[in-house]
Amino acid sequence: MRVLASEIKRIAAEGGGEEVEVSGWVHRIRELGGITFVILRDRSGLLQLVSGEKPDLTLESVIRVRGIPALNGKAPGGAELQVKSLECLSRAAAELPYPVNGEVSGIGLEAILDNRVLSLRNPKIRSIFKVQSTIIDAFSAYLRSQDFTEIKTSKLVGSGTEGGTQLFAVEYFDRKVYLAQSPQFYKQIMVASGLERVFEVAPAYRAEKHDTPRHLNEYVSLDVEMGFIESEGDLIELEKGLLAYIFGQVKTKNGDDLALWGADVPDPALVAGAPTVSHEEALRIANVEAAGTAARSARIFDINPEAERRLCDWAGREYGIELVFVNEFPRRYRPVYTYPLDTGGGGASSTMSFDALFRGLEITTGGRRQHDYAALLEALPKFGLKEEDMADYLSVFKYGCPPHGGFAIGCERLTQKILGLASVKEASLFPRDRKRVEP
Amino acid sequence: MRVLASEIKRIAAEGGGEEVEVSGWVHRIRELGGITFVILRDRSGLLQLVSGEKPDLTLESVIRVRGIPALNGKAPGGAELQVKSLECLSRAAAELPYPVNGEVSGIGLEAILDNRVLSLRNPKIRSIFKVQSTIIDAFSAYLRSQDFTEIKTSKLVGSGTEGGTQLFAVEYFDRKVYLAQSPQFYKQIMVASGLERVFEVAPAYRAEKHDTPRHLNEYVSLDVEMGFIESEGDLIELEKGLLAYIFGQVKTKNGDDLALWGADVPDPALVAGAPTVSHEEALRIANVEAAGTAARSARIFDINPEAERRLCDWAGREYGIELVFVNEFPRRYRPVYTYPLDTGGGGASSTMSFDALFRGLEITTGGRRQHDYAALLEALPKFGLKEEDMADYLSVFKYGCPPHGGFAIGCERLTQKILGLASVKEASLFPRDRKRVEP
Repeated sequence: MRVLASEIKRIAAEGGGEEVEVSGWVHRIRELGGITFVILRDRSGLLQLVSGEKPDLTLESVIRVRGIPALNGKAPGGAELQVKSLECLSRAAAELPYPVNGEVSGIGLEAILDNRVLSLRNPKIRSIFKVQSTIIDAFSAYLRSQDFTEIKTSKLVGSGTEGGTQLFAVEYFDRKVYLAQSPQFYKQIMVASGLERVFEVAPAYRAEKHDTPRHLNEYVSLDVEMGFIESEGDLIELEKGLLAYIFGQVKTKNGDDLALWGADVPDPALVAGAPTVSHEEALRIANVEAAGTAARSARIFDINPEAERRLCDWAGREYGIELVFVNEFPRRYRPVYTYPLDTGGGGASSTMSFDALFRGLEITTGGRRQHDYAALLEALPKFGLKEEDMADYLSVFKYGCPPHGGFAIGCERLTQKILGLASVKEASLFPRDRKRVEP
Repeated sequence: MRVLASEIKRIAAEGGGEEVEVSGWVHRIRELGGITFVILRDRSGLLQLVSGEKPDLTLESVIRVRGIPALNGKAPGGAELQVKSLECLSRAAAELPYPVNGEVSGIGLEAILDNRVLSLRNPKIRSIFKVQSTIIDAFSAYLRSQDFTEIKTSKLVGSGTEGGTQLFAVEYFDRKVYLAQSPQFYKQIMVASGLERVFEVAPAYRAEKHDTPRHLNEYVSLDVEMGFIESEGDLIELEKGLLAYIFGQVKTKNGDDLALWGADVPDPALVAGAPTVSHEEALRIANVEAAGTAARSARIFDINPEAERRLCDWAGREYGIELVFVNEFPRRYRPVYTYPLDTGGGGASSTMSFDALFRGLEITTGGRRQHDYAALLEALPKFGLKEEDMADYLSVFKYGCPPHGGFAIGCERLTQKILGLASVKEASLFPRDRKRVEP
């Protein structure tokens, strides 16, 4: 009966001196005065094996070992195993193309991604995905607690909801379809279906040519849509509850993983107090912040990456958390289905929309959607869209649709910012960018 | 403050006679002796609204209503709302192309799918996806309780792990990639990464030309992979625990949904006792079963759909549950990475593989995988595969990989069989088949 590395200290402390069995990978081998120390790695952590004989092992080989647990304050985890027998289950080639047990900081991103099969074995790199697993679980659990239903929608669509640009084409039997940029259309159908509150965790695709630390061509979208809201304010409240819960869960479940990155999750109690500023106000703040920096760069007219950083710095200073909600984006920045903000002055130039910025990066875009059939019909041509191309979408609104809205959180961006990773690509198991489609 | 239809009875019973607000869709309108009865539908169920005035409403319009709750044993849910004021939030067109409040049994599958935007509003059709949401949640929760980590892997791959047939091609910038048939390769990388136990819930694609009640070209695959197993028997035990938990959760959380379909979930306590029979034995049983039926159809040489039905009938009769695990499939039926069964006679013609059959349908394929690099290299040419095309995949095994295996459950098939749906397409929100890519 196999036990885990993390259990050895407890077993040693309980005494008894009985043999136990462990299994895992050979992480490190060291010889000292006729004694061989092998560091074994399993899913729970590292364990020192001590042997009087010199086993014939290569790094990364998979072994099964029987031995006697013993306390040792100097060993990783505070205990070690005195080896009685050792069996090699899978022998690794002697020359590793990637140093699994090396320091991550010394290796470039391209080398990490080129050797993904091996680099994921590094405990620090692997820890990113333990945190991501918690994020996905917490996202789902919180929304279920708020009476949301999980949905799974098709990723093969006839056209894009954003107007058909930046789509990857798929050869589907004798016709062409596209990979969905978002489940927008389907989320709205499902709100109008009467489920009212839905969420989806699924891949989304953007055929953008940028290759930056902010972009992925395939990413995991954490999507939410909710009926019977009044404004984007209801959505911001929901996202605050959600983020506070996610931060709390990561803090509780991933303490060791956070420690590997020296990362610090925001205090969940501070999330509710994160500021919401209008797009106009956000630009003003970003420019004031600019004036205070040494760079004194050019005036900011747009919530660009530089503005995102400045706004989060400002929020961190003023509110103790680097999280800002920017709402009321001008019409021209948002898709056709965005609900207008009635500013009382006739002709809505602003919208019930928002972005969430966290630690200098936009992690969410959302807003209330237009649910009025006539208003949608009228808006289409202004966005270069044709009624006949959107018959299915429009029918949602033709036959009764509640006021509603939603948002999406980029899973890899949230993971990146929680851990302080330099590039979003580090937070994708098998990232896809313009050049990279393997492994 | 909005309350739900399902809360009205409790509020009426508590008395107080205060006005409450409800919102939802107009499900049905009936007039009787100067009184108008409107059945309101919201995410929690149906509610009768009673009004002395005749509101100007169309079916499926979305309304907000204020009124006084009152007990009424004859109304749906045992209570009704006496209307004080009614506001129309979204007026539906008078002519509905699909009868939302009609009997599902009277409408053909093509009409249901052609009108998906409206047919999903029918409470019985929508209930399928409430059950599916529970299945996904239970699958994830059970595996997390067993120390599995959730992963999200790329759906864009350079080639297929099954040998490259039946793949949909994607135009990815200036090259061609394919939609993944399964996360097989990635699950194995993640076991070998040291996570050891992983699961994924994600779309999978098969470019099969069949159009049958068993097939979807895009489906949700519930994938599991686990290190340090001895044989497929460990996987069958895991799947039994998983299915018992899923059945229990659906029973607990979806009683109303099951009732709409007259569906009966198997007793979770019976799952552990479901039989495992070898492929050879399964054929024998299927043929004995055939002899006992009126059809007396031709001899069965393969676990085809007819054999799947007969085996499940047999298990239902003998073990009280229509669930059978068939293991030890001959080599020729399984992919290259399947681990051979050492039958002691030299030259393994059988494998450590299994299928799970439930209520007459294969819902799972799985098995132990070959983890030995040399053995994999030797097997490749027999399956028409080339070493150089699979360098990334092979490197998993070259550098130390534990004995491991896994399986995948088809989410739509499991949903279909729990509810007794005639076609798997009914269990997909937006099914994709040879002819259908919309909505």
